[in-house]
Amino acid sequence: RILEVLRAHFARQHDLDGRRILITAGPTHEDLDPVRYLGNRSTGKMGIALAEAAAARGASVDLILGPTPLSPQGTGINVTHVRTALEMHREALQRWPQATDGILCAAVADYRPETVAPEKIKKTGDGLTLKLVRNPDIAAELGQQKQPGQFLVGFALETENGVENARGKLERKGLDLIVLNSPRVAGAAFGHDTNQIQLIDGNKVTSFELKPKREVADDILDRLPAHPTPSP
Amino acid sequence: RILEVLRAHFARQHDLDGRRILITAGPTHEDLDPVRYLGNRSTGKMGIALAEAAAARGASVDLILGPTPLSPQGTGINVTHVRTALEMHREALQRWPQATDGILCAAVADYRPETVAPEKIKKTGDGLTLKLVRNPDIAAELGQQKQPGQFLVGFALETENGVENARGKLERKGLDLIVLNSPRVAGAAFGHDTNQIQLIDGNKVTSFELKPKREVADDILDRLPAHPTPSP
Repeated sequence: RILEVLRAHFARQHDLDGRRILITAGPTHEDLDPVRYLGNRSTGKMGIALAEAAAARGASVDLILGPTPLSPQGTGINVTHVRTALEMHREALQRWPQATDGILCAAVADYRPETVAPEKIKKTGDGLTLKLVRNPDIAAELGQQKQPGQFLVGFALETENGVENARGKLERKGLDLIVLNSPRVAGAAFGHDTNQIQLIDGNKVTSFELKPKREVADDILDRLPAHPTPSP
Repeated sequence: RILEVLRAHFARQHDLDGRRILITAGPTHEDLDPVRYLGNRSTGKMGIALAEAAAARGASVDLILGPTPLSPQGTGINVTHVRTALEMHREALQRWPQATDGILCAAVADYRPETVAPEKIKKTGDGLTLKLVRNPDIAAELGQQKQPGQFLVGFALETENGVENARGKLERKGLDLIVLNSPRVAGAAFGHDTNQIQLIDGNKVTSFELKPKREVADDILDRLPAHPTPSP
């Protein structure tokens, strides 16, 4: 077991040399006013683990990180901090043409408030109705702009009908691989140091056991194609 | 200046002996579904600084802390972690009768989603309307239940008409003192290690300079009445 782990470690040491990997991580915060926002439970741990693992294996990493107190360790990671889905969208689209691979791990808000109030909203009546509008779909846009040789990985967080929903997302958005995880599994997904995933491509579903996010990151990176044609 | 600081330090060393101070701190997160929530930019730093300063001065502190990665250092602080305004409301009301003083520093959501979806809400149309309902007003309820000898301090975060709004809040909610701060002042309020406050009671407004939150905490604690009658 120890020998196996060591062998895997050394085999991976330079296997991503020359790759430039775009990774999105963390939540987004969609402001209602100067103090209130719509958020989600992502802490960025999974995406930061992916960035650290990819850099340790020789890749140059562009990490676009939503609001989280956590940050990656080690060298080879270029971090861009963003707050909202619109900011993440702009930064991701700008970097995608230069990337050999993209791993979209961020939990991007699907909706944002229609208007951002310039001053703090005062309490008024007993209720309040909040109008939300759709945010751009970063995964779908990157999938659409994907060039030959580029490999795109998405994430699906589902609380029900996981495999079915994830496979639909994979096809609809032009992804090459999708990582399915669930907040319903103890110790998995948001906030935990461990995760339990299923990797789904066009053909098959591979299930992994619950393990540290850094090891989950290596399992995902192992699926990047061996010799990508660099994008133009 | 050094002598002055030292003198103030030693004078404060035991001045809160025998006090039991209820402090609320941090944001609240109001869930829409298992992954999404409504939050605010509070990090809990000001309330944690208050708890640490009060404990260092001899008080026994009950800290009710909303979701934040930060936690207080030192002894004499009993921390209760909560997530939502309803949880904070329940914990605060339960502890208030035993407290000699209350300092309500938390940024409690005024509204929560009318319903919490049991499964992750799927993207549907281009828009979404979110119905929000009012949360209980913790400051007003504690003010109403206040017994002779209990001293209640509130916070007001205002982006406009600060003093006027804060004074209204003080009177409406039965507070003895209100701390006004603004996210519009550079280096003040949410997320910063410094704060700039005004202390407002029935009679006057006292303005302080921008300084570390721990020193701001001491300025606030200096205003607790010298010999409170313990509550029954």
